[in-house]
Amino acid sequence: MSSVCLSMEGGAAASTPAALPYYVAFSQLLGLTLVAMTGAWLGLYRGGIAWESDLQFNAHPLCMVIGLIFLQGDALLVYRVFRNEAKRTTKVLHGLLHIFALVIALVGLVAVFDYHRKEGYADLYSLHSWCGILVFVLYFVQWLVGFSFFLFPGASFSLRSRYRPQHIFFGATIFLLSVGTALLGLKEALLFKLRDKYSAFEPEGVLANVLGLLLACFGGAVLYILTRADWKRPSQAEEQALSMDFKTLTEGDSPGSQ
Amino acid sequence: MSSVCLSMEGGAAASTPAALPYYVAFSQLLGLTLVAMTGAWLGLYRGGIAWESDLQFNAHPLCMVIGLIFLQGDALLVYRVFRNEAKRTTKVLHGLLHIFALVIALVGLVAVFDYHRKEGYADLYSLHSWCGILVFVLYFVQWLVGFSFFLFPGASFSLRSRYRPQHIFFGATIFLLSVGTALLGLKEALLFKLRDKYSAFEPEGVLANVLGLLLACFGGAVLYILTRADWKRPSQAEEQALSMDFKTLTEGDSPGSQ
Repeated sequence: MSSVCLSMEGGAAASTPAALPYYVAFSQLLGLTLVAMTGAWLGLYRGGIAWESDLQFNAHPLCMVIGLIFLQGDALLVYRVFRNEAKRTTKVLHGLLHIFALVIALVGLVAVFDYHRKEGYADLYSLHSWCGILVFVLYFVQWLVGFSFFLFPGASFSLRSRYRPQHIFFGATIFLLSVGTALLGLKEALLFKLRDKYSAFEPEGVLANVLGLLLACFGGAVLYILTRADWKRPSQAEEQALSMDFKTLTEGDSPGSQ
Repeated sequence: MSSVCLSMEGGAAASTPAALPYYVAFSQLLGLTLVAMTGAWLGLYRGGIAWESDLQFNAHPLCMVIGLIFLQGDALLVYRVFRNEAKRTTKVLHGLLHIFALVIALVGLVAVFDYHRKEGYADLYSLHSWCGILVFVLYFVQWLVGFSFFLFPGASFSLRSRYRPQHIFFGATIFLLSVGTALLGLKEALLFKLRDKYSAFEPEGVLANVLGLLLACFGGAVLYILTRADWKRPSQAEEQALSMDFKTLTEGDSPGSQ
């Protein structure tokens, strides 16, 4: 709350916590390493990526890691990284990153279903696939609801304020479930191919285990930056003023607000 | 912050948010279902549990689900459930639940290492085992550091206040990593045994998938109760007063506190 007061008093508004940039840089380094390592794993041990062959399957892990891990994670961080920019700009960037993530994830989904169809494999029998479908549906619903509340001009200020904590909680939860689903998928890919060789510390197994730990670390780093109380985005002066007006105006219609 | 003011003004201190008991009841129902379903899975499809035979392995998933999922999750909720009890009592309960969880998890760890030794299987080659060891070490360190800061009388108030957010963040993260590790272990157990039958929707596979989803839901439910801002434990009047005194006394020695 003290940062709000500071920003209302004047020029001190554009301050950034000293340690934040280092944590953000670290998270980005982790995220890029993740994407590069997924590419390296698929290139070195799985024959690379192509759409018109058996290699179509490999588009699935790469798209999912880029879309539902790296881009989704970065979309959550937008309000921390651009904490001193106008709220509207930040909102649009948040929405755009989530659209990119959704489209790339959709390509990854099409890749695996198309591959299964061509090879005659069963769909949606594994825990990875169940979690994956759950994540994708929740992610899509969250995007739609988020858009209607925050980008569509019709929603009232009080409605937005009440929905915001839910949006943040479900956003973080969907992201963490995405990380868990990726770990399950990685494990599945290893056990299907390596089988008993996994226990002989095959290089592919070790590389994929390290990739799995990095996935978990990226999830942890994003969660830390997102939840640290003193790194939350300060309300800007004009929003503060607006919020006061709207609060007075709208408080009447929600006496029993939970 | 308004709840603090309320509690300082008098009798309104012992209030509980209306929806909290329902969410807690739901989380406990989920947790008990999880434990029962793990038992059912091991009993129906894995021959039950015993220490002195091949069935020793089965002690591992059951102990881990009871210790590092159910009890660990409940230990995190203690400050929400007993929000109007004395802080000291709640602290001791939190510490005790974590000791039970740690001991039960240790039995589960011994079970799997002992089983591997007897059967001549390799240790610590899989992503599940890497995540598991990481979780166990972090959990043990968190317990030790938490004990020295919060139960050992030597730590100053300002030190405790600065460590508290870190303790909460790492506690939640270790819990979520435990859930992720359990999902990986479940998947491993399924793929090792069912192999290609998994894709034929074997009853064991479907049961275990449902168990996996319940594990993820329990993680989500605990996280929701833990992070909802208006469900946080209100500071009691006497702690508030103490905090003021200590803040004045100790603030001098940390001018550049981050």
